[in-house]
Amino acid sequence: MLSKCGRQLLRASSAWRLRCWRQLGGVRMPQECPVEMTHTSLVIEAEARRFIHDCLRRVGVPFEKLRSISDFLLAADYRGVHGSGINRLEMYLRDLQQGYVDITAEPEIISETAATAHVDGNCAMGVFVGNYCMDLAVEKARKLGIGFVVAKRSHHIGMAAWYAFRAMAKGYIGLVLSNAAPMLMAPGAQVASLGANCLAFGADATHSHFMLDMAVTMKEIGAVEWAYIKNELIPNTWAADESGLPTCFPSLALRAQRLYPVGGHKGYCLAAMIDVLCGVMSGANYATRVPRWWSESQIGCNPNLGLVMLALDPCVFVPDFHERLDDFRRCIETSSPLDEAKPIRMAGQPEKQHMYYVDDLGALPFPNVLLAKFKRIADLLCVKPMELAFVSSNTQYRCM
Amino acid sequence: MLSKCGRQLLRASSAWRLRCWRQLGGVRMPQECPVEMTHTSLVIEAEARRFIHDCLRRVGVPFEKLRSISDFLLAADYRGVHGSGINRLEMYLRDLQQGYVDITAEPEIISETAATAHVDGNCAMGVFVGNYCMDLAVEKARKLGIGFVVAKRSHHIGMAAWYAFRAMAKGYIGLVLSNAAPMLMAPGAQVASLGANCLAFGADATHSHFMLDMAVTMKEIGAVEWAYIKNELIPNTWAADESGLPTCFPSLALRAQRLYPVGGHKGYCLAAMIDVLCGVMSGANYATRVPRWWSESQIGCNPNLGLVMLALDPCVFVPDFHERLDDFRRCIETSSPLDEAKPIRMAGQPEKQHMYYVDDLGALPFPNVLLAKFKRIADLLCVKPMELAFVSSNTQYRCM
Repeated sequence: MLSKCGRQLLRASSAWRLRCWRQLGGVRMPQECPVEMTHTSLVIEAEARRFIHDCLRRVGVPFEKLRSISDFLLAADYRGVHGSGINRLEMYLRDLQQGYVDITAEPEIISETAATAHVDGNCAMGVFVGNYCMDLAVEKARKLGIGFVVAKRSHHIGMAAWYAFRAMAKGYIGLVLSNAAPMLMAPGAQVASLGANCLAFGADATHSHFMLDMAVTMKEIGAVEWAYIKNELIPNTWAADESGLPTCFPSLALRAQRLYPVGGHKGYCLAAMIDVLCGVMSGANYATRVPRWWSESQIGCNPNLGLVMLALDPCVFVPDFHERLDDFRRCIETSSPLDEAKPIRMAGQPEKQHMYYVDDLGALPFPNVLLAKFKRIADLLCVKPMELAFVSSNTQYRCM
Repeated sequence: MLSKCGRQLLRASSAWRLRCWRQLGGVRMPQECPVEMTHTSLVIEAEARRFIHDCLRRVGVPFEKLRSISDFLLAADYRGVHGSGINRLEMYLRDLQQGYVDITAEPEIISETAATAHVDGNCAMGVFVGNYCMDLAVEKARKLGIGFVVAKRSHHIGMAAWYAFRAMAKGYIGLVLSNAAPMLMAPGAQVASLGANCLAFGADATHSHFMLDMAVTMKEIGAVEWAYIKNELIPNTWAADESGLPTCFPSLALRAQRLYPVGGHKGYCLAAMIDVLCGVMSGANYATRVPRWWSESQIGCNPNLGLVMLALDPCVFVPDFHERLDDFRRCIETSSPLDEAKPIRMAGQPEKQHMYYVDDLGALPFPNVLLAKFKRIADLLCVKPMELAFVSSNTQYRCM
């Protein structure tokens, strides 16, 4: 059984439904912008994809690999998770140019059992390693109900939910874990010792889906960057400065790259658990052994990140899993909120609402500050800048 | 390869090393009390076990099942996790007496693959369901590197780390998830919709171990009870009163049973993820479908809780996993702390230190308020009260 949401996400990035808002107008009320506001403009998906491909071609990405990269970047922007969307292109272009990732490499299996596999990412791009590992996990889950794949020598995997959706599109539950360069401080520490490790977990219901996609930090580094761009202060619970003390200044936080864990000690230990599985158990780097982004220690070396992909067939356990998950959602969403205007929602619902919103618009809304960044990349690489569908200074939007 | 720490924990509860502190005196410095202080007294392990057995016999627990229950309760007190130790006996006695758990029942497999199993707990006590499921997961992991077992119709499983240690004692990584009666509020809600669900993850290194054992609440309900006993206020970030607003009064918090999640929305979503796996996927109750403890809705029915046990053979992926985990610990513990007197420690180290501390004492230290509770149980059931080894009003200690 194919998952509706997984299919929707995967299909959206291969054949954009530009005019679906007209067709859907009579079926569903047009969606309101689901998130906080700031200035945005609209870009047609094909144009955003053209821009990504042009940039990637400039750093030598072969034609047959362009689509996989643009698919996973556009999917993040489709869900409103701009921190993992085209915003990340600059980092990937730099790492491709510097040779930290090998665009010709393909992941391969080192060893396997019927239910597990150990994969060498061979320094390929994170999306290729991630896709390969999740597909392998699904393949194993098809036979035994569970597939567990661990990989080393991977790179930044982007939006972790992408891989969980990949499992969901084939009817499975997906769990994704990945470690990262040190950016997370233990409570009471003055330096970062773990990465802002991420966890994504997705399961499909009949009429909805559950999708948790989180980093173990109080706030992602993207939120600090965003505050810096907007010239705003940040709460002093988000990050520390270079002396290890809490700061309200995003400039100091960005220089230090020291974030606080969500939930204090529990969050830090959760990050450590992810690193034990992804780094220690995979043969990849872990904790402070991962070179810091943009640091001298990174020069000339692949970061050798690790990841875990788990696919699970829920119908092995209960045949009516999808109906039960719908009922679970109702239990959550009928909780009485303190403020009736702010109902309780299941994980993944705001992003799903954003996907409907984009469908209604017929184009991707990008914050104008991000578009300015894309313009700088275009100038640097001498490619045609991203063309706007139309500029709407009234439409406002928040980068998540 | 058998894990040192798992062996230590399991052995400790089957043959207490009363005089080990004398033998170890020349090898390791006597341990200081690893936690915050309050009045305690000491009880020899055999006496604590006698007391548990006497109480259990009064509610009809057959002789051959006594040891399994006392083992897992004493192991929690050995680690200093009193919230899951003999402190829980009262709840188990009540549920046994009321017939919410069936002491004669044995868990059984509903369906299985080579790597997974779906178990019916048959309303047995949580510890029997948990032990059965983890042993089954280990059995499967022995052949395929991974074993994943899901159970329904279980009961409260106590200290989740117990089952992870069970996997570690046989050389595996253990992951334990369990759902619970609604006690957790979503941010912005005024009623509880999820349980204070728990997660334990344990892995052994050559010279140490990693053990994360956490509930997804800001603080466990035991900490609120503890504040109530000590007549202290609690921070208003821990719990809400019956109107759904934050409270500083433990009496109001205990009446309402509405705890805040750790890390706000992220913690709540993590609790939901655990419930999707343990409740929705197992065929057990989930979210608000679980009857509340001590509520009228619970009368006459088993709570039908769910659990997940996963065992993983790390040496399937990297043969030197245990040495790498030791190195990981060094990376964590050499992080510069803000206060040199408070070094950064890996998850599970404070509890391990407590085990050494108990070894040095040669007896279990119990907070005097807990001992007073045990005295009340003894009076109620007409069994001989727990005899103290000696009362030490100077030794002070905190219930964790």
